[in-house]
Amino acid sequence: MSSDPLPVTGAWRPGDAPGGRRFFTFATDRRFALDSGATLRDVVVAYETWGSLDADAGNAVLLCHAWTGDSHASGPAGRGHAEPGWWSSMVGPGLPIDTDRYHVVCANVLGGCQGSTGPASPHPDDGRPYGSRFPVVTIRDMVRAQSRLADHLGIAGWMSVIGGSMGGMQALEWAVMHPRRVRSLVAIATCMQATAQQIAWGGIGRQAVRLDPKWDGGDYYDRAPGDGPAEGLAIARQIAQVTFRSDNVFTDRFGRDFSGRAEAGDILGMWQQYEVERYLRHHGDKIVRRFDANSYLAIGKAMDLHDVARGRGSLERAMARIQVPTMAVGIWSDMLYPAYQQRAIADEVGRNGVASEYHEIDSPHGHDAFLIDGDQIADRLDGFLAEASKLR
Amino acid sequence: MSSDPLPVTGAWRPGDAPGGRRFFTFATDRRFALDSGATLRDVVVAYETWGSLDADAGNAVLLCHAWTGDSHASGPAGRGHAEPGWWSSMVGPGLPIDTDRYHVVCANVLGGCQGSTGPASPHPDDGRPYGSRFPVVTIRDMVRAQSRLADHLGIAGWMSVIGGSMGGMQALEWAVMHPRRVRSLVAIATCMQATAQQIAWGGIGRQAVRLDPKWDGGDYYDRAPGDGPAEGLAIARQIAQVTFRSDNVFTDRFGRDFSGRAEAGDILGMWQQYEVERYLRHHGDKIVRRFDANSYLAIGKAMDLHDVARGRGSLERAMARIQVPTMAVGIWSDMLYPAYQQRAIADEVGRNGVASEYHEIDSPHGHDAFLIDGDQIADRLDGFLAEASKLR
Repeated sequence: MSSDPLPVTGAWRPGDAPGGRRFFTFATDRRFALDSGATLRDVVVAYETWGSLDADAGNAVLLCHAWTGDSHASGPAGRGHAEPGWWSSMVGPGLPIDTDRYHVVCANVLGGCQGSTGPASPHPDDGRPYGSRFPVVTIRDMVRAQSRLADHLGIAGWMSVIGGSMGGMQALEWAVMHPRRVRSLVAIATCMQATAQQIAWGGIGRQAVRLDPKWDGGDYYDRAPGDGPAEGLAIARQIAQVTFRSDNVFTDRFGRDFSGRAEAGDILGMWQQYEVERYLRHHGDKIVRRFDANSYLAIGKAMDLHDVARGRGSLERAMARIQVPTMAVGIWSDMLYPAYQQRAIADEVGRNGVASEYHEIDSPHGHDAFLIDGDQIADRLDGFLAEASKLR
Repeated sequence: MSSDPLPVTGAWRPGDAPGGRRFFTFATDRRFALDSGATLRDVVVAYETWGSLDADAGNAVLLCHAWTGDSHASGPAGRGHAEPGWWSSMVGPGLPIDTDRYHVVCANVLGGCQGSTGPASPHPDDGRPYGSRFPVVTIRDMVRAQSRLADHLGIAGWMSVIGGSMGGMQALEWAVMHPRRVRSLVAIATCMQATAQQIAWGGIGRQAVRLDPKWDGGDYYDRAPGDGPAEGLAIARQIAQVTFRSDNVFTDRFGRDFSGRAEAGDILGMWQQYEVERYLRHHGDKIVRRFDANSYLAIGKAMDLHDVARGRGSLERAMARIQVPTMAVGIWSDMLYPAYQQRAIADEVGRNGVASEYHEIDSPHGHDAFLIDGDQIADRLDGFLAEASKLR
């Protein structure tokens, strides 16, 4: 764990080293309308690109990130990016999402904290962070912001929209909201509608952040460094981290090992730590350094609100809008987005005679296997994208 | 939800209506030694009994409760007991744990808050609640306290020791610690050693209680009514509640229904509540009324420390001490104590040629199915106990 002082918020701020980020600002004259009825102006989308756009702009791939991801899908850690790209094993020259062949775009989501407008961003009215003034955003709002970016980049349609977990929710909404702008779809470890159990985990995490007296109702940005809602965010993150992994792997990796470190205390003390607790705490503390608690709330809420059927009559009618080849991928050990949910995506798309396929990652790592064992779908994804590249 | 004012702690206190509780006090002259090396004196065990003890004391059955259970295994709610008995469908005249035939004993565990000595109990030195002075207790310490009670009641050996979840941990420890005092064993939805994932859930819940500024390091008993660590305890309980149930049942029961109540807010508001969130919140608030936050921590920690192998060389050697007929029961939908753990109990016991059997409750309700669908094992439990009653 780093010994740098803890920030009041882990949000990237304008003026910090940009890393590979570029920025696009829209809604400078007309306000951007959200699902909730609220509006935003001067909306920034931070994004990165890899590879060259063809003359006919036909080789553009949109990659959508998950909860605490950002635009840095590929490449090393460095100034501006504390971590290497979250899918460096899959995105790059000669990799399945081949940046020698495709122009890959990844944008930080609306509500995020890595350069795109979110709760830690300066409010245009007063330059102070939005904090509690930041409105609820939905997956559809994220897609709307991405569609503005696509316009700006001259990308009329995506050869493929690809995402895992929350990224897959965006991919599904892209195909439903903009059927003429998407030519294929890859939805990994995701769902058409957040389930009650997913909402349950999300809602408990939100309560933990709210319980932190340093959350200040969402307006904690004036606190001193190290004095932000680190504890609440760390607890929320730990809940998520358990659901991202699996019983098997926790047993294999940690068993009942006692941490044995000085801070772990006596083995029969109330606050002694087993290795698994130390591991979770490490993940909890780590998120605090690179993520904003309000963004964590905003994005988590967007996932719970995710429902492709909302306002569209029924799930069947919503999914019938998807008329492009679809690859759905599940993970047998995923306790958070169980494989039946991705099988259902392939079934719904295929119901209308549209080409759909389902693949399962055979990994014990749970939900995070889409990041850890993505190579299992490398060949098939490579083939799927090669076919998609012929669709113009 | 009750509109009574919230207590500072939900612990039962001496002087409250006793309900069916009786009390046994020990360690009045010699201190009671715990696994941790700490000692206690003037230890109280609250217990209830049903049915008559045979002249030879051969028909005594010990029933062990789970995390937030208590001695009130059977019977109606009433003064002193906010809830009906936690296993009223299984314990009573003509029921599988037949109080016409057996003398059934159920004791509140050491560390509990329903009459047995725990963190909310008066410290003998000053009459003030133990609070942060209460030592860590283990499942073995709970069994040691129960063995003192058995001595007091004139019960040299139990015809059967029966428990689900943490109750099953006690049942296993009884058979390992006191092989000559147990003639049969029923272990339901439990394990031989807490796994890393179980510890993970427990540890996160403890952090939520600790985050509550009203927890006061465990010394909150002087706070005003309604001003205790209700929020932290409610969050910890909600984490547990999700693990006690299942994805299937949450989907069937709540789906994505919006609570639609006044307090639920706008459907696109950050703090709107889906039905599943309202349900969890209800369970969280309910525990606060009847349970003490420090007992929640103490008992949860005891479960995480549970390991029949600790100090006994190996799991195999520890389990080899069990030389009595054993019935292990699992639930296919249990995500917290998965069925493989109870199959392993039956396998370990059977390895030495001891009679062991495994049964599975076919219920979608998850861990709590041992309370909800216990009737599925009623016939087999009835038969198992009838056989056990012949062993003297």
